[in-house]
Amino acid sequence: MKQVVLAQRPNGPAKLDNFRVEEGAMPEPGAGEVLIEVSHLSLDPYMRGRMDDVKSYAPSVALGEKMTGQGVGHVLASRADGIKEGDLVTGITGWASHAVLPGEGVRKLDTRLPATTALGVLGMPGFTAWAAMKTIGAPQSGETLAVAAATGPVGSMVGQIAKRAGLRTIAIAGGEEKCTLAKDTFGFDAALDHRAHDVKTLRAALSEAAQDGIDIYFENVGGKVLQAALPLMNTHGRIPLIGTIAWYSGVDTSGPDHLPALWRATLVKRLRIQGLIVFDHWDLFPEFLEEMTGPVAQGDIAYIEDITEGLENAPSAFLSLLNGGNTGKAIVAI
Amino acid sequence: MKQVVLAQRPNGPAKLDNFRVEEGAMPEPGAGEVLIEVSHLSLDPYMRGRMDDVKSYAPSVALGEKMTGQGVGHVLASRADGIKEGDLVTGITGWASHAVLPGEGVRKLDTRLPATTALGVLGMPGFTAWAAMKTIGAPQSGETLAVAAATGPVGSMVGQIAKRAGLRTIAIAGGEEKCTLAKDTFGFDAALDHRAHDVKTLRAALSEAAQDGIDIYFENVGGKVLQAALPLMNTHGRIPLIGTIAWYSGVDTSGPDHLPALWRATLVKRLRIQGLIVFDHWDLFPEFLEEMTGPVAQGDIAYIEDITEGLENAPSAFLSLLNGGNTGKAIVAI
Repeated sequence: MKQVVLAQRPNGPAKLDNFRVEEGAMPEPGAGEVLIEVSHLSLDPYMRGRMDDVKSYAPSVALGEKMTGQGVGHVLASRADGIKEGDLVTGITGWASHAVLPGEGVRKLDTRLPATTALGVLGMPGFTAWAAMKTIGAPQSGETLAVAAATGPVGSMVGQIAKRAGLRTIAIAGGEEKCTLAKDTFGFDAALDHRAHDVKTLRAALSEAAQDGIDIYFENVGGKVLQAALPLMNTHGRIPLIGTIAWYSGVDTSGPDHLPALWRATLVKRLRIQGLIVFDHWDLFPEFLEEMTGPVAQGDIAYIEDITEGLENAPSAFLSLLNGGNTGKAIVAI
Repeated sequence: MKQVVLAQRPNGPAKLDNFRVEEGAMPEPGAGEVLIEVSHLSLDPYMRGRMDDVKSYAPSVALGEKMTGQGVGHVLASRADGIKEGDLVTGITGWASHAVLPGEGVRKLDTRLPATTALGVLGMPGFTAWAAMKTIGAPQSGETLAVAAATGPVGSMVGQIAKRAGLRTIAIAGGEEKCTLAKDTFGFDAALDHRAHDVKTLRAALSEAAQDGIDIYFENVGGKVLQAALPLMNTHGRIPLIGTIAWYSGVDTSGPDHLPALWRATLVKRLRIQGLIVFDHWDLFPEFLEEMTGPVAQGDIAYIEDITEGLENAPSAFLSLLNGGNTGKAIVAI
């Protein structure tokens, strides 16, 4: 079996040197465990946080330890009740060709849908979008939503959920190609290329696109987009906060201090800003699948997958994801 | 009649020169209106915001216009249905000895309680505390709450509501005298003097007082106290935000930028930060009065009033309030 381990912690942006591919003996399932042959691995921005030795909502990956992540694959051998050889399952396999997991750590998949949907549109990213919109965003017909990384697996789901709820939807994405994708494939009403703007001109463009102001700013990036969007928030606006990717790899905290202005806006506009980690909301996952599996199966919810071949290419695909170089849900086919 | 008008807008901290006392003709009530002889006027931190020509949740006071504010007094003449001469009422009288208001703009008071309670413990400050705790704070027995300006009319009510709900309560106040008051009169479990600390030592003292972390940081000041409290927030902590008095009078926004750290904490700890303006919640006011009038009448809720004699002394009393120089609800007896 092969796996990718954390070779060094990044000092600033992550680099290829931070990873190492290792080969090892095939693991064997103990009592209550299953052995999975991983066919696809999910790459997600949160993994960058796990590479740092910083207290967070989940433990860091230790040096020399397998990178964490969700995979899908077939069961090669099972010693767990209710799971048998050949079942298609998903679980936290890590970046590896094979993984042993406890039976309660895996979930059997609906084989009528492509297995990779369990990593994206019907997996953690899709569920993150849905849960944050449901518990914090509270979209109301006629409102306006803005979201960055709008062609990514979370942003594209956010936009489509909002559109189905009757909102005007504004995409912010990197590059013209992604802007076209946002409008044509994901149905956004407007799309802005943040690469073509600084904070000031991005704010002007956003203001133009959101003539009635922004009711929901779905936060998954931080940085420039946040600075542009904040002054455009409407009274009683909501900011579900599920990521700060612009601020993952070392933050320049030299002034000015934007906290006083944020505080004032939060008071004056009675904003609600709330962080969400999807792991807190697994109790809602069945409701999410119930609601969204149909629309995905019927093609009413669009999704794009960006599949890289070969586990040894996972590190470069991950770096590309962090730099916004990919389009769609980043997946490694093993 | 006498009134206090806004003579100039402050450039930085407010000063006595910003105000002017004027005498004028006694106003007369038109159809549907009442004339009130104001006996007591409320002074509140939000008034500082109204002195600036900045878009906010309420219009600024115009230059030469009467300062806004809530008063209580008896009706001298009424042309409004349901209100008669001699009734004790409250309304937005402004800083004036007499005021004409529309009948629907005044509320008749329960004469069994001192009229001044309608300005403080059973008025806007008490209701602000109650509404923010009810709609955002969501206190759970066994949790820990921290609040600044803890002997003020909002902070003291917040602490008492939290204590009654079974929370450990930590006061932050300016000076040893207020700290003693916080513990002895308002029942806080611990009290910290922010004047004796910089951010770092305040955080250490707060960490000592809040051994299990902070679940609710009730925000009414911003600045140093916020910086000290933020890293101590527990997962799923709540920050009801009802004022930023430390940042009212000109803000030093030179670096470092604290926004990235706030954003990261909000995500990692799934914080909920939400602004509240009490004007949005008047529908809850009857429930507040129903719940709190009894405890106030029975002496189970403590409150302190700081009464200044004479309308002409309202400006200096207001400046003292902004500088933390008063103790208890600031009221002017006219």
